[in-house]
Amino acid sequence: MLGNTYESQVCSISRTLEVYGERWTFLIMRNALFADSTRFVDFQRSLGIATNVLSARLDHLVNEHVMERIAGADAATSSGAAAGATRYRMTPRGRDLVTALVALTQWGDSWAAPDGAPVLYTHRAGAHPVRAALVCDECGVLDASADVEALPGPGMPNHLAERLLARHEARVAS
Amino acid sequence: MLGNTYESQVCSISRTLEVYGERWTFLIMRNALFADSTRFVDFQRSLGIATNVLSARLDHLVNEHVMERIAGADAATSSGAAAGATRYRMTPRGRDLVTALVALTQWGDSWAAPDGAPVLYTHRAGAHPVRAALVCDECGVLDASADVEALPGPGMPNHLAERLLARHEARVAS
Repeated sequence: MLGNTYESQVCSISRTLEVYGERWTFLIMRNALFADSTRFVDFQRSLGIATNVLSARLDHLVNEHVMERIAGADAATSSGAAAGATRYRMTPRGRDLVTALVALTQWGDSWAAPDGAPVLYTHRAGAHPVRAALVCDECGVLDASADVEALPGPGMPNHLAERLLARHEARVAS
Repeated sequence: MLGNTYESQVCSISRTLEVYGERWTFLIMRNALFADSTRFVDFQRSLGIATNVLSARLDHLVNEHVMERIAGADAATSSGAAAGATRYRMTPRGRDLVTALVALTQWGDSWAAPDGAPVLYTHRAGAHPVRAALVCDECGVLDASADVEALPGPGMPNHLAERLLARHEARVAS
């Protein structure tokens, strides 16, 4: 359970973290999106996570419609060691976390990677480097020093919206 | 403690989550970056967080050089109720989380905001909408369906790099 005030709950970051806000969950998502992990054993081997914990995390992601469970094919119609294994497939809701995962990676690359970036994200079969950035509808890709503000949106209750707007106006006037 | 395998530890997402990977921490960062929170009491009131928990989280962020603690001015030379209060100021290391925070917000706005986005991020005194996006060095701003891959970077140990490259080559060939 997160915040007990309205202000901390009416927040899309809080709501995102209600779904993903456990560190293993982000790493499971990373492996599903970027390491072709689909079977329980894929996640288990690459993460070294306890099976009961992994099982609970995958159940949670399926319940949140971030992944879907695909029943294994009959052994008779499949080939290879993995025949029959249940697979976990990302839904569009899950795949849409990609920008956040790249942005979280980038922070670590910039501030906590003494040996350099472990992973490079690329586009078009590895040929073009990709990064996460803030993009302004009018000005294009922003640099890190751009002044970005938070203003009330349609989902903000009125009394909180007024407080945010008052702060914005004080900043503009100063 | 996160992963007990090398593969889960040599990861910039893991390292980012070692710093921020507790939900309150992301919300403290949000309030410092976007709600002008600087004093203990600002964070405490807006988040409704227990003071011992908030104190531990702020200590952690200061220890991680994400925030710095500014001793309060003498009451004699300050004015207002907050005179003398210690302030918490974001460092460049902390401010650089902004893209990840906007990206996490966006996921919540898209998939978990039944009343619409609570907050709109803007540029230039509120005039221009801002979003987080993946940007390709060659192709510009990518849309959500772009095929982004993870390839080994300079910080990836050789045996893991070989595995990632083999997967990449199998994908290109298929």
